[in-house]
Amino acid sequence: MKALRYENGTLHVAEIAKPVVDGEALVRVMLSGICNTDLEIARGYAGFQGTIGHEFVGVIESVSEARASARASQPSEPSLTVGLLTQGQRVVGEINAGCGACDLCLAGDPRHCAKRTVLGIVGRDGAHAEFLKLPLANLLPVPDQISDERAVFTEPLAAACGILERAPIATDTRVAVIGDGKLGLLCAQVIATTGAPVTLIGKHKGKLQIAERRGIETMTVDETEARKREFDVVVEASGSPSGFATALDLLHPGGVLVLKSTFHGAMEIDAARVVVDEITVVGSRCGRFAPALELLEKGAVDVQSLISEEFTLADGVRAMQVASEPGVMKVLLRP
Amino acid sequence: MKALRYENGTLHVAEIAKPVVDGEALVRVMLSGICNTDLEIARGYAGFQGTIGHEFVGVIESVSEARASARASQPSEPSLTVGLLTQGQRVVGEINAGCGACDLCLAGDPRHCAKRTVLGIVGRDGAHAEFLKLPLANLLPVPDQISDERAVFTEPLAAACGILERAPIATDTRVAVIGDGKLGLLCAQVIATTGAPVTLIGKHKGKLQIAERRGIETMTVDETEARKREFDVVVEASGSPSGFATALDLLHPGGVLVLKSTFHGAMEIDAARVVVDEITVVGSRCGRFAPALELLEKGAVDVQSLISEEFTLADGVRAMQVASEPGVMKVLLRP
Repeated sequence: MKALRYENGTLHVAEIAKPVVDGEALVRVMLSGICNTDLEIARGYAGFQGTIGHEFVGVIESVSEARASARASQPSEPSLTVGLLTQGQRVVGEINAGCGACDLCLAGDPRHCAKRTVLGIVGRDGAHAEFLKLPLANLLPVPDQISDERAVFTEPLAAACGILERAPIATDTRVAVIGDGKLGLLCAQVIATTGAPVTLIGKHKGKLQIAERRGIETMTVDETEARKREFDVVVEASGSPSGFATALDLLHPGGVLVLKSTFHGAMEIDAARVVVDEITVVGSRCGRFAPALELLEKGAVDVQSLISEEFTLADGVRAMQVASEPGVMKVLLRP
Repeated sequence: MKALRYENGTLHVAEIAKPVVDGEALVRVMLSGICNTDLEIARGYAGFQGTIGHEFVGVIESVSEARASARASQPSEPSLTVGLLTQGQRVVGEINAGCGACDLCLAGDPRHCAKRTVLGIVGRDGAHAEFLKLPLANLLPVPDQISDERAVFTEPLAAACGILERAPIATDTRVAVIGDGKLGLLCAQVIATTGAPVTLIGKHKGKLQIAERRGIETMTVDETEARKREFDVVVEASGSPSGFATALDLLHPGGVLVLKSTFHGAMEIDAARVVVDEITVVGSRCGRFAPALELLEKGAVDVQSLISEEFTLADGVRAMQVASEPGVMKVLLRP
């Protein structure tokens, strides 16, 4: 099968063997999405070698007989989906696969298992391929109303939903999101669904308009000067070190700063400011898939406006180049 | 009156006029304590000019007739103390005096008022003097059982108690405190009163022994290697940038890092680690005085072992030099 791989410092599309299923589910990938993490891996920042990609929608090709034990050891989602997961089912998949034995896995949350593998990121071949394998417990059925082009956003949308697990957001919480890239646009839209007033801060008029069409207030970075100390929660989704300083300026004392993007390298922070203003800084990475699928099913979030271009998997290297260009948002790959 | 002042880049003991009371309370200082913040101010880091010092115990010398309005505008403590605050009463005092009009002050917490003055730190002469003035609402009576030498620790002990306002600590929460200086020793003791298992991490055997005598586990920085990812809450009270890195190493995924000391200047953090492990970083500065007085009244915390030396106020400059020497803990000044 074809797979987009990063190996020995080189990104290339290779012909490799189909995954051996050994107790997991084999999924035929219908569509995969290129994430900034993929670009970081291809720059050699993450130490991963193999097939990249972790955003996908696919169809179950086969399910191994180890199904029951896989589910028992990884109860990452409620079991309501068990009956639906058979051959031919359209699915998306949570990307962390825990060891199944540590305290975190046993508590039902393998996202932080120290021995976890992560699809296309840590110790497990990823989604930019014709087939992938994942534990059956990681898979969720996709409702018929959600097209492949929207379902492929489930993973990044779940990451945006993860903010709601980590920060207290009520209908009167004043929230700002810094960064008008695809992550920031998803975060702002997810937070807007709670009824809280959200302001998206960015640099690109065209991108900010996507949020404006959903009734979200927007402003440019220059305009933040007049809004200092005004927000209860600020989400840093720009991936830029200056975003952290802007976030501190915007926060009311006692406010919450959500770090959403994984910067690489060290970041300088004004620690005295965090102490004196008693700020809470919250790291937020992955979220659960169920709330994201619910938002997609209700049509509560516009993800299709975030699609910049689609390539065939065979053209994966060029797709990655396009995805890394300024202003480009989501690039999709079709095997 | 005598006062220890930092002015035009020089620390000196000066003869100045007694404070004019204008609607506040005049307090005769019995004993004051030198804090690391005083040392920072005397190094010119904080931009403050005037009488330094914010840790004190004193006696009310006079109360102006504006008493009722002062209390109404600054309800920072419950009103049970009103009847006791008359001339001759022994008191300690909260150091933040709010504007009385902004949303934070009206909500009863002037600690973050943007226009606040802070005793000996921002816009208000401090406690290393024969007399100071503060709004009556800032003062709390000191129970007779608490000696002056222990009451003078109320402010730093309240700061340690502030951790419990900011981090979730239950009897099964595994807590580490980094830093065996006076702040770290107070933090470890306060957390131990909750019943949670606490480990104090430091470099100085003699200081660690103060905690050990209170039944607190201690370890050296070298020993932390074997305890990585083991703690739910880590309190950084060392004031050293390396303390932050050690804290991240010790934290379990999803853990809480409490930043307790006000570093000056920028600090480098591994932001990706905060995101990937979904760490919460919590800044903590001042705490309320009532819980601190309660701990002192019960004898639940050993503060007297933290006293290194006492000087007369006239000898204040030398006292500050001694306080800045390595290994020295609390230095007291007696007017």
